[in-house]
Amino acid sequence: MLEDHPGGARVVRAYGYPGAVTFPVVGMVGGGQLARMTHEAGIPLGIRFKLLSDTPQDSAAQVVGDVVIGDYRDLATLRAFAQGCDVITFDHEHVPTEHLRALEADGIPVRPGPDALVHAQDKGVMRAKLDAIGVPCPRHRIVDDPADVERFATEGDGFPVVLKTVRGGYDGKGVWIVRSPAEAADAFRAGVPVLAEEKVDFVRELAANVVRSPHGQAVSYPVVESVQVDGVCDTVIAPAPGLSPELSAHAQQLALKIAKELGVVGHLAVELFETRDGRVLVNELAMRPHNSGHWTQDGAVTSQFANHVRAVLDLPLGDPRPRAPWTVMANVLGGDYPDMYSAYLHCMARDPQLKIHMYGKDVKPGRKVGHVNTYGDDLADVRERASHAAGYLRGTITE
Amino acid sequence: MLEDHPGGARVVRAYGYPGAVTFPVVGMVGGGQLARMTHEAGIPLGIRFKLLSDTPQDSAAQVVGDVVIGDYRDLATLRAFAQGCDVITFDHEHVPTEHLRALEADGIPVRPGPDALVHAQDKGVMRAKLDAIGVPCPRHRIVDDPADVERFATEGDGFPVVLKTVRGGYDGKGVWIVRSPAEAADAFRAGVPVLAEEKVDFVRELAANVVRSPHGQAVSYPVVESVQVDGVCDTVIAPAPGLSPELSAHAQQLALKIAKELGVVGHLAVELFETRDGRVLVNELAMRPHNSGHWTQDGAVTSQFANHVRAVLDLPLGDPRPRAPWTVMANVLGGDYPDMYSAYLHCMARDPQLKIHMYGKDVKPGRKVGHVNTYGDDLADVRERASHAAGYLRGTITE
Repeated sequence: MLEDHPGGARVVRAYGYPGAVTFPVVGMVGGGQLARMTHEAGIPLGIRFKLLSDTPQDSAAQVVGDVVIGDYRDLATLRAFAQGCDVITFDHEHVPTEHLRALEADGIPVRPGPDALVHAQDKGVMRAKLDAIGVPCPRHRIVDDPADVERFATEGDGFPVVLKTVRGGYDGKGVWIVRSPAEAADAFRAGVPVLAEEKVDFVRELAANVVRSPHGQAVSYPVVESVQVDGVCDTVIAPAPGLSPELSAHAQQLALKIAKELGVVGHLAVELFETRDGRVLVNELAMRPHNSGHWTQDGAVTSQFANHVRAVLDLPLGDPRPRAPWTVMANVLGGDYPDMYSAYLHCMARDPQLKIHMYGKDVKPGRKVGHVNTYGDDLADVRERASHAAGYLRGTITE
Repeated sequence: MLEDHPGGARVVRAYGYPGAVTFPVVGMVGGGQLARMTHEAGIPLGIRFKLLSDTPQDSAAQVVGDVVIGDYRDLATLRAFAQGCDVITFDHEHVPTEHLRALEADGIPVRPGPDALVHAQDKGVMRAKLDAIGVPCPRHRIVDDPADVERFATEGDGFPVVLKTVRGGYDGKGVWIVRSPAEAADAFRAGVPVLAEEKVDFVRELAANVVRSPHGQAVSYPVVESVQVDGVCDTVIAPAPGLSPELSAHAQQLALKIAKELGVVGHLAVELFETRDGRVLVNELAMRPHNSGHWTQDGAVTSQFANHVRAVLDLPLGDPRPRAPWTVMANVLGGDYPDMYSAYLHCMARDPQLKIHMYGKDVKPGRKVGHVNTYGDDLADVRERASHAAGYLRGTITE
């Protein structure tokens, strides 16, 4: 859905390139695949893209023209990087909040800003805010020690309980499912506050993705199903098959509400549990382009990456509607064969409609090194094509 | 249409990046917008893209990570550039044939190769070859001087006659329409051989675009109508409205035949005249991605740029079929206002489905600085949206 179109023009600082037109410079912190694909989406817009990357070998650093190598945890590095930028945005959520505030004090627009981003950085802050604005979450509270975990369990339906460090976790890291106080000990070792959550008896995982601009314009992508394997996203199906129109609209409205109430600018992914009794509960938030939105590159009128760029520049947002009845994204994980390129021959010859997106990363077993998108009218066929290609690239399918 | 799928694997030289996987390096000569958009299309494939560009300000040089600044007319520069590449391809057709032969002698695959490319470099060679393989062309011959132009005219229906220098022309440059021997004098001043052609009484201009791989696999895009204004492509409509299925298939088969007989590898654009008596005649050839194929970025399953990359790497080609009933491309020319970025607000808010492709070029009156694509079910609507956006960006429409 498309909401309220923005009003008048905003002034974007002129780009200082000799003789160049006044196209803005978008500075992205972090050289991962999200930055790589954001650069790809920014090229047609004619914007200037500048990258702060840890190493020249990083996924995005391989393909971007204007790269600064440096440590995003160092304020002086961030400040020097930001000098040439009209806006700063992010490939990841790890930049310290106080650094973001310093950049804002220097007059650099930071999007999403630190007041929004903290909700994606700290799960304790996120849960407290979602409670305050009436967004349904799993039962939760911060716990002090293993004994407190047992109290949390007995307050509800008992063990198992999910424990998460409030900062630093991703893709199953920093998350424990524990069945006793003894099993809870690991979660407290890092010295980071620990959030306890009920283990939701869910039917499946969904994601509601929205993009919001500083003007307050927002677009909502179709709600998707995210199939997880071993705590890592394996497949995304757009739209989520069999999802009732009411629950779909409810999930979209929750995501739009969260984006607005938290002041998000850019792409917001709201990961959801669909419960057996027909509700949705918020699992996680990500304030950047997200794996659950990769299908939009080939399956939507405007990709999450293009809309993220448009949002951080406060440009009118693009149409988020799907271009095909079904689009399926399958992640490509590293397997035992380091050479994925030779697998292109089989995959491309088998399916001339296949869309491959590789990240330029070295293959390591289990590492996300790319994804594929397929689309079409027949979900079973679309899903089989994505799954076959991802498996063949990984090396788990050899025929 | 899709033709014979390729057979077994070809060995591509391993990329020498420390610790990297064996993805190939595509070296592109020329830093214009075609290289810029080829890089964009290559990013998802995970290939390494290396650019030889005249200046760091060139369209592609702004967005590519691995750029060599140098003069493509200098063999030593070309040789040094080619050392790090698995294949060499082109943004333009101006690299001297003898340099391409030298690279081939060094063992570097050059795609398209010099024996094919010469037909896009030299209109005299092109016409002789098309005659030899029985492809219909306007009546033509090389002429020696203005008196010979008069003889050429009287051999046919008289003046006007079209004169073209056999090398160096593009977008109306190097082309004269003359009505007398006196008017013909200009064409001979450059000291380049001059080709005389009948001025075809055409209904409209078409383009048949195909992509061919070294294996001999080829795909053919729908035949498009190319609307020229003042000798420059203004609008491309895909597919060409009202074109008979027979003439469409004939044009596609001509393009496939030319690609095969000339040994083209990569994208081949065959510009055609549709005559009043229902024939097609070949106007020009281009052996690289082409303005008449820009619609494929948003309107086809696989873009001309992605298929060009796949072809020069001898990968199986992608599906060339359209994704919408109608796609329209409109070129954005420079106007009197240097700042096109502020026009984004109006264009994007008016049409959330609009696809803007800007080239990072300084605005100069009449210069191609970008294009827009629109697609949909209703040709009149799709065409109006493209035309409005292109006019608004140029500054000729202000409401």
